[in-house]
Amino acid sequence: MPSEFDLIRRHFTRPAAHTDLAVGDDAALVSVASGMQLAVTTDALVAGTHFFPDAAPRDLGWKALAVNLSDLAAMAAAPRWATLALTLPGVDESWVAAFADGFFECAARHDVDIVGGDTTRGPLAIAVTLFGEIPAGAAITRAGGQPGDDLWISGQPGLAALGLAHLQQRLRLADATRALAALHRPKPRLELGLALRGVAHAMLDVSDGLVGDIGHLCERSGLGALLDTTALPLAALRETGADEAAARRCLLAGGDDYELLFAAPPPARDDIAALARRLDLPLTRIGHLTAPAEPMVLLREADGSLRAPESSGYDHFAAG
Amino acid sequence: MPSEFDLIRRHFTRPAAHTDLAVGDDAALVSVASGMQLAVTTDALVAGTHFFPDAAPRDLGWKALAVNLSDLAAMAAAPRWATLALTLPGVDESWVAAFADGFFECAARHDVDIVGGDTTRGPLAIAVTLFGEIPAGAAITRAGGQPGDDLWISGQPGLAALGLAHLQQRLRLADATRALAALHRPKPRLELGLALRGVAHAMLDVSDGLVGDIGHLCERSGLGALLDTTALPLAALRETGADEAAARRCLLAGGDDYELLFAAPPPARDDIAALARRLDLPLTRIGHLTAPAEPMVLLREADGSLRAPESSGYDHFAAG
Repeated sequence: MPSEFDLIRRHFTRPAAHTDLAVGDDAALVSVASGMQLAVTTDALVAGTHFFPDAAPRDLGWKALAVNLSDLAAMAAAPRWATLALTLPGVDESWVAAFADGFFECAARHDVDIVGGDTTRGPLAIAVTLFGEIPAGAAITRAGGQPGDDLWISGQPGLAALGLAHLQQRLRLADATRALAALHRPKPRLELGLALRGVAHAMLDVSDGLVGDIGHLCERSGLGALLDTTALPLAALRETGADEAAARRCLLAGGDDYELLFAAPPPARDDIAALARRLDLPLTRIGHLTAPAEPMVLLREADGSLRAPESSGYDHFAAG
Repeated sequence: MPSEFDLIRRHFTRPAAHTDLAVGDDAALVSVASGMQLAVTTDALVAGTHFFPDAAPRDLGWKALAVNLSDLAAMAAAPRWATLALTLPGVDESWVAAFADGFFECAARHDVDIVGGDTTRGPLAIAVTLFGEIPAGAAITRAGGQPGDDLWISGQPGLAALGLAHLQQRLRLADATRALAALHRPKPRLELGLALRGVAHAMLDVSDGLVGDIGHLCERSGLGALLDTTALPLAALRETGADEAAARRCLLAGGDDYELLFAAPPPARDDIAALARRLDLPLTRIGHLTAPAEPMVLLREADGSLRAPESSGYDHFAAG
């Protein structure tokens, strides 16, 4: 059985592009460029809570980094460095090799150096901390929303939740391909995040369910929100063969989307539409921010009626 | 049952002294001072591997941060910020409160801001990523050792391993107080690490067993080492009532020490002795670096004979 040290060395030591001293010492050394702030985020994936213990290791490796990249995208920061704490029930070398391949595929795609690792024996879990740079003062937080700002969502929220429901046989999709890809290989919206510097007033990544995360943005901005259900991007969800109620439920409260929700002033609409074309990424205007309200988020239905959403979001403790 | 969000907010939101934007957004924002490199390290503690599942949560909180602080001390870096990924089998609020108390006690003592957190349901585990500042070029790595350098060790390696053996009833200590304190509340040697800038050629923190970690320093410096067994600091180990063989075994290969091992040129001996007095911390000269050798580390016994050590160190996979 190879030792912990051999294992780390063999699979997690790769060339580092912008690191002064990489894995192998007590700590790594990196240099943050002058005038830059450092953005830092951490997210763990735990077997049985965030993924099935028999999930494909290559997908897991990708996703463990991608969910953290999504957080940096939501700050409009450029990712640079990551650490990985990997807990494994034993040394299954082919598993580790596939996990590392997926992890480094995602890292290379997004120009991230791995600067620290820790591998231990225990129940399967992955904790990643990711660091990025952003010009001082240019970050887009959750707190900058203004009354009257449009609310936009990227890509196709709800698709990953449909994929999960399909895997769990809670429903049966005619075509699960895109839904499963969204679940296993989320695409962090880094280009979009960077392009929204100076455009969006507030932003966050939708990982706990769209309505719940709109609530988080409202809470930090001290505002309310009106969500127009006729504007929701349901087309791709319908194409999976899901029924209308399931599609809507997954879109509003599904979780695991890793899409960007942002608030921007109405005069930016043309620029945002142009951005959607340039990035070949749907950007959908789904509502707007209002004065502070109770409940914070309201849905406007097709008949013009207003009502409170059923679910306030996804909670790994409540749902676990 | 409080939600994940409530739990994080209630116990892990504390005032941050040197952070631009702390916990609560998609990422935290911090500023690294001009001319400084960033030192980054990560270490996870997993129930059943690193600690007993019924370990006191206050001690665990302290130790989870302290073992990471020890890594920064070994680079001669000043700690600044940390992230915490906490996996819990359920929400036991008194456990979380005690854990947070221990964690923040250690953070406050060492001037560390907590800038990111993630709490999930799963088998008990704690992953911390810690980052600190160091003037560019001033880090003390493992690679700078020179032939003829003295090898020094801080404090009392072996004490924590005796404490663990006592807890596991593999031996019986007459007085286990200090040994258990060393095991549960390791003191990261940050003042020592900073004071050794410009003095030590190479340094690491001893966490995998003294002999194994000397091997790591030798490997990175491309040298051998001669360890003088008559110079080993055994006094405090004897005071616990441990027999000589157990004391020596724990000192040489025990693990969990979190002491600093450093290589410094002989002319620095007086300065190092003065430093030991100023910090009220024993610093013991236990051998020296040699030309490259095979085996890399040799022990010189009281009768002048040389022999290879029995164990090459501690491995959480081999030992798990």
